[in-house]
Amino acid sequence: MRFQGKTISVSVFGQSHAAAIGMVMEGLPAGVHLREQELRAFLKRRAPGRDRFSTPRREADEPEFLTGLMEGVTCGAPVCAVIRNGDARSGDYNPDIPRPSHADWAAYVKYGPDVDLRGGGSFSGRMTAPLCIAGGIALQMLADRGVLIGAHIAAIGRAKDRLFDEMTVGEEDFARTLEHELPVLETEAGLAMAAEIDAARREEDSVGGVVECAAVGLPAGLGGPMFEGVEGWLAQALFAIPAVKGVEFGRGFASAAMKGSEHNDPFCIREGKVVPETNRAGGVTGGITTGRPLILRAAFKPTPSIGKPQRSVSLKNMEETELVIHGRHDPCVVVRAVPVVEAVTALVLLDLILTSE
Amino acid sequence: MRFQGKTISVSVFGQSHAAAIGMVMEGLPAGVHLREQELRAFLKRRAPGRDRFSTPRREADEPEFLTGLMEGVTCGAPVCAVIRNGDARSGDYNPDIPRPSHADWAAYVKYGPDVDLRGGGSFSGRMTAPLCIAGGIALQMLADRGVLIGAHIAAIGRAKDRLFDEMTVGEEDFARTLEHELPVLETEAGLAMAAEIDAARREEDSVGGVVECAAVGLPAGLGGPMFEGVEGWLAQALFAIPAVKGVEFGRGFASAAMKGSEHNDPFCIREGKVVPETNRAGGVTGGITTGRPLILRAAFKPTPSIGKPQRSVSLKNMEETELVIHGRHDPCVVVRAVPVVEAVTALVLLDLILTSE
Amino acid sequence: MRFQGKTISVSVFGQSHAAAIGMVMEGLPAGVHLREQELRAFLKRRAPGRDRFSTPRREADEPEFLTGLMEGVTCGAPVCAVIRNGDARSGDYNPDIPRPSHADWAAYVKYGPDVDLRGGGSFSGRMTAPLCIAGGIALQMLADRGVLIGAHIAAIGRAKDRLFDEMTVGEEDFARTLEHELPVLETEAGLAMAAEIDAARREEDSVGGVVECAAVGLPAGLGGPMFEGVEGWLAQALFAIPAVKGVEFGRGFASAAMKGSEHNDPFCIREGKVVPETNRAGGVTGGITTGRPLILRAAFKPTPSIGKPQRSVSLKNMEETELVIHGRHDPCVVVRAVPVVEAVTALVLLDLILTSE
Amino acid sequence: MRFQGKTISVSVFGQSHAAAIGMVMEGLPAGVHLREQELRAFLKRRAPGRDRFSTPRREADEPEFLTGLMEGVTCGAPVCAVIRNGDARSGDYNPDIPRPSHADWAAYVKYGPDVDLRGGGSFSGRMTAPLCIAGGIALQMLADRGVLIGAHIAAIGRAKDRLFDEMTVGEEDFARTLEHELPVLETEAGLAMAAEIDAARREEDSVGGVVECAAVGLPAGLGGPMFEGVEGWLAQALFAIPAVKGVEFGRGFASAAMKGSEHNDPFCIREGKVVPETNRAGGVTGGITTGRPLILRAAFKPTPSIGKPQRSVSLKNMEETELVIHGRHDPCVVVRAVPVVEAVTALVLLDLILTSE
Repeated sequence: MRFQGKTISVSVFGQSHAAAIGMVMEGLPAGVHLREQELRAFLKRRAPGRDRFSTPRREADEPEFLTGLMEGVTCGAPVCAVIRNGDARSGDYNPDIPRPSHADWAAYVKYGPDVDLRGGGSFSGRMTAPLCIAGGIALQMLADRGVLIGAHIAAIGRAKDRLFDEMTVGEEDFARTLEHELPVLETEAGLAMAAEIDAARREEDSVGGVVECAAVGLPAGLGGPMFEGVEGWLAQALFAIPAVKGVEFGRGFASAAMKGSEHNDPFCIREGKVVPETNRAGGVTGGITTGRPLILRAAFKPTPSIGKPQRSVSLKNMEETELVIHGRHDPCVVVRAVPVVEAVTALVLLDLILTSE
Repeated sequence: MRFQGKTISVSVFGQSHAAAIGMVMEGLPAGVHLREQELRAFLKRRAPGRDRFSTPRREADEPEFLTGLMEGVTCGAPVCAVIRNGDARSGDYNPDIPRPSHADWAAYVKYGPDVDLRGGGSFSGRMTAPLCIAGGIALQMLADRGVLIGAHIAAIGRAKDRLFDEMTVGEEDFARTLEHELPVLETEAGLAMAAEIDAARREEDSVGGVVECAAVGLPAGLGGPMFEGVEGWLAQALFAIPAVKGVEFGRGFASAAMKGSEHNDPFCIREGKVVPETNRAGGVTGGITTGRPLILRAAFKPTPSIGKPQRSVSLKNMEETELVIHGRHDPCVVVRAVPVVEAVTALVLLDLILTSE
Repeated sequence: MRFQGKTISVSVFGQSHAAAIGMVMEGLPAGVHLREQELRAFLKRRAPGRDRFSTPRREADEPEFLTGLMEGVTCGAPVCAVIRNGDARSGDYNPDIPRPSHADWAAYVKYGPDVDLRGGGSFSGRMTAPLCIAGGIALQMLADRGVLIGAHIAAIGRAKDRLFDEMTVGEEDFARTLEHELPVLETEAGLAMAAEIDAARREEDSVGGVVECAAVGLPAGLGGPMFEGVEGWLAQALFAIPAVKGVEFGRGFASAAMKGSEHNDPFCIREGKVVPETNRAGGVTGGITTGRPLILRAAFKPTPSIGKPQRSVSLKNMEETELVIHGRHDPCVVVRAVPVVEAVTALVLLDLILTSE
Repeated sequence: MRFQGKTISVSVFGQSHAAAIGMVMEGLPAGVHLREQELRAFLKRRAPGRDRFSTPRREADEPEFLTGLMEGVTCGAPVCAVIRNGDARSGDYNPDIPRPSHADWAAYVKYGPDVDLRGGGSFSGRMTAPLCIAGGIALQMLADRGVLIGAHIAAIGRAKDRLFDEMTVGEEDFARTLEHELPVLETEAGLAMAAEIDAARREEDSVGGVVECAAVGLPAGLGGPMFEGVEGWLAQALFAIPAVKGVEFGRGFASAAMKGSEHNDPFCIREGKVVPETNRAGGVTGGITTGRPLILRAAFKPTPSIGKPQRSVSLKNMEETELVIHGRHDPCVVVRAVPVVEAVTALVLLDLILTSE
């Protein structure tokens, strides 16, 4: 469960109902001043129990930094932070009956009967909390270098926000997404999405969505050919987020229906520098950043935990049965996934930047 | 330029106009009998100059195996194969004027003036030939284990083939794709795609597309949580293929508009074994294979090389200029990309299987 | 600060005076029953303040397992254990005057002024405690597979123990080393070593030594050519132990003065199996285990912390000065290093065995 | 068979009797001018058949650079070089009877009957030729940065050269070693070593030795704690050289018998800079370079190939038998190992320097 970059690595550990969850981040330089308030505010965006859209499980998600910092400044040693698990109700979960479309059964096959599936174990969305600690640090270090990252919900169910403008996206957009109850660019879109989520909740169902993320201020020249490409690094990290089923950059799947003459970004000279005049590429060509905003989208499947009765099996009796999930769960993970997408995007980009420095 | 799995690694080397291109594959067990004819047939599907849809550059693409084999059987030592570069016309390329939406300019920024951009250098689609040698070996080893992989063109421009049936896809479908001039399931779709390509060529333009790939016969239990997930490994490898701008699994981006009750795959018991009754997940939940067919799609942008005049810049003079590309190029890389998608899918899956054996 | 094997990795984190030290161990299978008492007994052999030979700093060194275990059994998720730092007296250390032959100054150059050098920071011998948690787990898993590892002090100063018999070394020897006050094979040797340590302490000086370690019950066939060799993996791990300045296998440096006819191990057949008749190789030829006992030695320099006045510099004033170290320190780290050598040897060998299983 | 640094990797491939041997070197910046004559001169020092001390097998060892260079300058793409295998006499080797103290039998156990053991396969000393191509490139890049590396034979059998002066070692010493028939500092020592080799050859026997290597001009601050230490990286690389059985730094095993007050290197100020006044540490404390010369020694066992009759077994018949090795072999590999030790030392140090740049 490790993000292994070229300079940075992040080992995430824990299970939903273990004593704690946490992460070890290696490869940070000494002398980075951590802005703790900013980090806590960032983690809060992911934390559950925050609003009517998320699971009522309440976790303070307060990270305790055990190592790597002296008075809030990195010292060059690995940074370890842990979050104690408080409000866990193991009784809610029955390991005998795997929940459809969760990792339960596949994990049981892989690890055998000793696997910890209480609350989803290591497969729980809760594991994104330590990821956000690391990502929150990365976001601050990127900001110090003039690189800003922001994300919004592009779609929930059939409700859609407008997409980022691929040329002008930036700080203003990122600020706007924080003003709404849901992180969107357009108020109308947020209302429509809230309606989708409310409808799903009423029906004891769930709904999926799309998160769009942009990074601006990136230098040109990060990445490399084939397996060194920025898109590949980002994609692997994004698919590490539970429930992600698709990732695209720039025009993504839409580019498949385009002509080269429509999709190509001509070069021009602006303020004495070569730049692509348009940015259908989403900031990456040939696996290397162009200096234009990097734009990506991640598709999230609907939360597999739904209240509706579902068909499953009893592993013990090897017979089919019905399952009704009573546990606490989000009708839509997409809302809380927005900062997680920012976090993993930041991790990958910081790694590339530190490697090139 | 290395695929680094847990057990297998493949170092790809070369540039479009270097003396050779090639690969070193490490981690194979001794005793694997390579079926050379089968490998050559596989490589031929990717080779240029084969039909009216691909670049007229003619390369035999005959791999010479230098190491790792004794009479066609692996001996446990790294397998190195090289392909000599024959028909290279460096004169076709002018490094001073970067081609829009190619890696040229970004690579120049990254590597500086000594970068080799002749014919796209290491960023050339030609580098997928050594990838297909490694992938071709992986395909054979998977077949020996009962795992079959096949891909088809799901879309070119607006022309679409039907998608694989996520439950029944298999050998029969894979065989069918080889019967048509273009690798598709439906004859009509192939004709419509050919028309799209022909139209693009006539207009000195290009067109993008989507490749869909399936792997059947996989055991349940491959992969793991977060950064260990099957989807993340596959995505990184797929984005290593030049021109890929999006990757999705199962219902992918479409799942974002679905309800949990529509998307979840209930468990049932078939022939005494637990299996998901449906396969909207595309064979992976929680990053782990379910045993159902693994299904993925990769979106390819339109070939950036087009005959139409384009705007670019002269790096030497730092002034805007017009560029007309005369070199040889495919109006649609998607056709030749089909075996490449199979190859990288095979590499990742073989790695996971060997690691679990 | 990570041991990165092929199957197992161990991220060690912490500083001598941070809130805690600890480790994350990844790659363990689910279902391993941890024998906690055995682990604590093992850790105790390394813990300080245990006897008159070691630093009076008292640390309970009680690991708290945060993740990866359910009722003492691994669940397949990363195992994280932390040890809270209790008895730290930061006042003992003056970061302005680097201690000769410690990492202080070199670390200051590498990390800059924000480096944490209190008590040696991440360079402290204290960091071997988490290493011993991981190694202790590895020792148990190896024992379950019939592989036993034991070490003894081969030399302290000029006092020498007899070496392991390279053919017959085994459980009996390992048990014997635990019977003496110092872990040695011969009572006399232990007394002579104690005298060396006592003399060094009286003179406010320190003394170095050699640890010899053996692993018996290993299968033949672990390792590989060149960078895959068992010796190289072990050496990198052994040099991770602070103060190690030399590592050798089998006859090691002595083999340099031997003839091939004296050093070669002829093959013979015993009980129907091919085995080397002698074991000058120390259980490894060509980087691969032979099945005979693996034997290695690690040389430890004398503890750099000595009470005698030493010459150093004030980094602030950039002037030469005298340094007298008052802090607590071992006159000889070799005694406590014995279980550490066992631990890292176990980690590497377990990794090779799990990879080959 | 890959050296995996943090920035550089070198994949070595080939077998003694394959079509070729070679290497792929990744991670080099673009713009490095390769001095080809210098490289060939370096490779010649390792090549067989050069003098009366080495195996009469004649190999031109002329590397062909396939990729990564344009007119002798790196372009940022992986550098692949191959050496065709010419003068191979497979008939000399009988895979049925493993040669004592060679990898033959251990490799057979590991890889099974398909392993290529002709001429030692991938375990052959011949595989150090591609390592020297990579190392030769590294040596040039280090020299461009003011870092010089040189080695000499410290001992062959009982004949000993004087050791490098740990404070003043440098270019002059390195030049001197190239003036003698054998690479030594003292003429007398060279004559005594030649006598040892000649005696061993006459007796159809072989003899071991020690190579000492120094790197001067290194910056302070390379490396890190525990598994990041310079000594560990170097040791793993040095043990990749066939026949190495011991590695030590600075005073190495001798330090074990020293007092702290004798071994510690006090700090002083010279020309306004902090430096260790002595260099018993051999240029590394706490895993980090001090700026003083890095000094290491590698012990080589006697060549296992000897003409004298030896006892072995027939694997086919599973019976003991006598083996007389007729093939070509060095009575002492240490002479040709000198540039190999320089090569791997250079690889590791270049990697650390590039990573820190």
